Amino acid sequence: MEFVTGIKEKETINIADIISGERYGSTVKLNGAVHTIRDMSEFAFVVLRKSEGLVQCVFEDGRLADFNIKSLREESTVEVEGIVHKEDRAPNGFEILLTKIIVLSEPAKETTMPIPISKWKLNTSLETKLALRPVSLRNIRERAIFKIQEGLVRGFRDFLFAQNFTEVRTPKIVAGNAEGGANVFKLEYFGKKAFLAQSPQFYKQTMVGIYDRVFEVAPVFRAEKHNTTRHLNEYTSMDFEMGYIESFEEIMEMEQAMLLYTFELLKREYEKELKILNIELPDITKIPAVRFDEAKRLVSEKYNRKIKNPYDLEPEEEVLIGKYFEEEYGSDFVFVTHYPSKKRPFYAMDDPKDPKYTLSFDLLFKGMEITTGGQRIHQYDEQVDKMVVRGMDPEDFTNYLMIHKHGMPPHGGLGIGLERLTMRLLNESNVRETTLFPRDVSKLEP
Amino acid sequence: MEFVTGIKEKETINIADIISGERYGSTVKLNGAVHTIRDMSEFAFVVLRKSEGLVQCVFEDGRLADFNIKSLREESTVEVEGIVHKEDRAPNGFEILLTKIIVLSEPAKETTMPIPISKWKLNTSLETKLALRPVSLRNIRERAIFKIQEGLVRGFRDFLFAQNFTEVRTPKIVAGNAEGGANVFKLEYFGKKAFLAQSPQFYKQTMVGIYDRVFEVAPVFRAEKHNTTRHLNEYTSMDFEMGYIESFEEIMEMEQAMLLYTFELLKREYEKELKILNIELPDITKIPAVRFDEAKRLVSEKYNRKIKNPYDLEPEEEVLIGKYFEEEYGSDFVFVTHYPSKKRPFYAMDDPKDPKYTLSFDLLFKGMEITTGGQRIHQYDEQVDKMVVRGMDPEDFTNYLMIHKHGMPPHGGLGIGLERLTMRLLNESNVRETTLFPRDVSKLEP
Repeated sequence: MEFVTGIKEKETINIADIISGERYGSTVKLNGAVHTIRDMSEFAFVVLRKSEGLVQCVFEDGRLADFNIKSLREESTVEVEGIVHKEDRAPNGFEILLTKIIVLSEPAKETTMPIPISKWKLNTSLETKLALRPVSLRNIRERAIFKIQEGLVRGFRDFLFAQNFTEVRTPKIVAGNAEGGANVFKLEYFGKKAFLAQSPQFYKQTMVGIYDRVFEVAPVFRAEKHNTTRHLNEYTSMDFEMGYIESFEEIMEMEQAMLLYTFELLKREYEKELKILNIELPDITKIPAVRFDEAKRLVSEKYNRKIKNPYDLEPEEEVLIGKYFEEEYGSDFVFVTHYPSKKRPFYAMDDPKDPKYTLSFDLLFKGMEITTGGQRIHQYDEQVDKMVVRGMDPEDFTNYLMIHKHGMPPHGGLGIGLERLTMRLLNESNVRETTLFPRDVSKLEP
Repeated sequence: MEFVTGIKEKETINIADIISGERYGSTVKLNGAVHTIRDMSEFAFVVLRKSEGLVQCVFEDGRLADFNIKSLREESTVEVEGIVHKEDRAPNGFEILLTKIIVLSEPAKETTMPIPISKWKLNTSLETKLALRPVSLRNIRERAIFKIQEGLVRGFRDFLFAQNFTEVRTPKIVAGNAEGGANVFKLEYFGKKAFLAQSPQFYKQTMVGIYDRVFEVAPVFRAEKHNTTRHLNEYTSMDFEMGYIESFEEIMEMEQAMLLYTFELLKREYEKELKILNIELPDITKIPAVRFDEAKRLVSEKYNRKIKNPYDLEPEEEVLIGKYFEEEYGSDFVFVTHYPSKKRPFYAMDDPKDPKYTLSFDLLFKGMEITTGGQRIHQYDEQVDKMVVRGMDPEDFTNYLMIHKHGMPPHGGLGIGLERLTMRLLNESNVRETTLFPRDVSKLEP
């Protein structure tokens, strides 16, 4: 009988193994995709693309008796052997003088790349880039975007684990929806009507009754019919929910501390990608917090703008609030608090001092909402009353109300749009740039 | 202007702060849900439930002048103050002599728990437990199940990060599906037909072309019409995919090493839950690997069972294979390799030595499949040919075939059903026991 007993060490090594430095002068074996070939007649540069970065290899005529460099094609994958040399002009400071090339795989016959992925910047339209996503992501800058995104999620999780949060996974096929409205996807579910979850709201609140503090990073679905630069029909929501809060400000404090931790993580472990994308991480040691009505007033005064609707924020007002706090306080972030009750969902807790407003907030990052959060109603009667006032039938929410009926601690939480957070951090103007395979009204593929 | 500048230290402390020991004899403040009240006339035991565990508090008549213990209700949440005493018979070895109780919230008036969640074992049917999931999960054993599940996901992620895998998030609303068949949920998508992803197969392969090694932990959707103890219509798939493999055995080695790491993580960080659930972690230092046809033969001989269909495994045969390797090699796990080509999807790589079989495997855990994996076709022509032989139209897969067309390294990967892995580890007989909010043909709520 054969047994599987763990990972065998591979003969091929990584860039990290080489730049530790001790390999200089010795022969190494590594693999990668052929990113570019530059044939200089006497010799050729063959640049390999690996997950970690690029490796410059030098092919000298005659050194590999049986290999014809003309037969090597870009985007083939290879295993090579060669001698490592220090070379300051090469990526990572070294190059490899090839002594052997084995071709592992090749692109289809007579095809060429539809997009010059080895260029530093893909000078093509977003439309083209997205249509060719499976290959355009091979570009060094494009793929760096999603490493940064990985780091944002890692930061969120690692920080919350350290704060005694429990990770949960809640269903995406649901019978009813938390956020209401028309923007919900319908599904045929064995003869019953079902929906795709717009948010994990009901479930994450439920789980506070079980673990006190919970989080989830998962897809959510919004059937938004309008195609804007900041909306997606499927996106990643980073949600947390915490019990035993004394005020909704604790939720904002948790978010600010989480973002601070995450940016430090990026600095520490994603330095390469920050450099590739030329990202300067914003200072987030303190975030100004301003009431909704006050924010409207400040912006109206400073930018000489009439307040049209005192109970809503227009996107343009959001931009101006962002601008105001950048100019006045040098902050890319601002918490806007106490949103009007009529603009918040039925589970939002009203401010006892003025029930026209809620104990809630948005976090704006460079003038765009990236987070919505707040305290939730935890007492049964209060929740039922608010439903009735809104013309909702509590009978439709029996499963959700079970938690209020049987006792819930004071609690609240938030949801962060991962793609928007990435978009703002990278100063991109379209959220599709920071979504691996975006879904919108007209885009369902690739 | 007010600023948010991080988490304020809370006055309330946790169980971990107390069992470090130095708080004995001093006054502490903590919060929790009232799990049970046992009124002994002269005094009462009030047990608090916190995320970390239970805390026994003692209420002595007269000590809290203004508090009537008769008014306290189970499942209220409270903040209490009291003096910590060593008490070996209490959970975690201490109790708290109460000096103050503040009620933070209460269940609805005149309600009682529909299920005795404070009992050690909920002696109710699975049906009842699931119908009351929002509260039945408050039971100590029930909630321990999903802490273990959290640990399984953490192990998977942490191990793969250390092995240079990149975490990705791929779309769940898709235009076509990888696994084919009828068990796919259909969706109305702005006048177009869309589906819910049965697996991230196409996307994770695509991402190997970008990062060499990738993983994803996310929901997948299967419109299975049959209600069995081991099927769900929505479950969590832990997927990885790795490039530059020299053989499909590398994928099995990666999985075995990952599981070994994960079980060590459980031992280290989930000791409490392992104890609550009385779980003995299986030995996984080596896993036997047997060919599909050989496994069928071994089982047929030992258990005197006729081979009905040489190209398929019946669930009963899976059970017997599990039994065989437990009896003969003392292993709860067995890799079954080289599944027949006709039972594997079109992207599976056939064994060049015998194309009736594929370079693929399942991992069985106590006689149940918890993983399917294998090497994928990476050359364009080979993939197109296999599609054509199967009567598929390559034109329908243009986006997927883009990766083969433009070069892919030899690669393969696997998917692990998280709920099934948990189920087997806990010796549960129904996968719904280890699913937070299960979805099946008849269950869409809660």
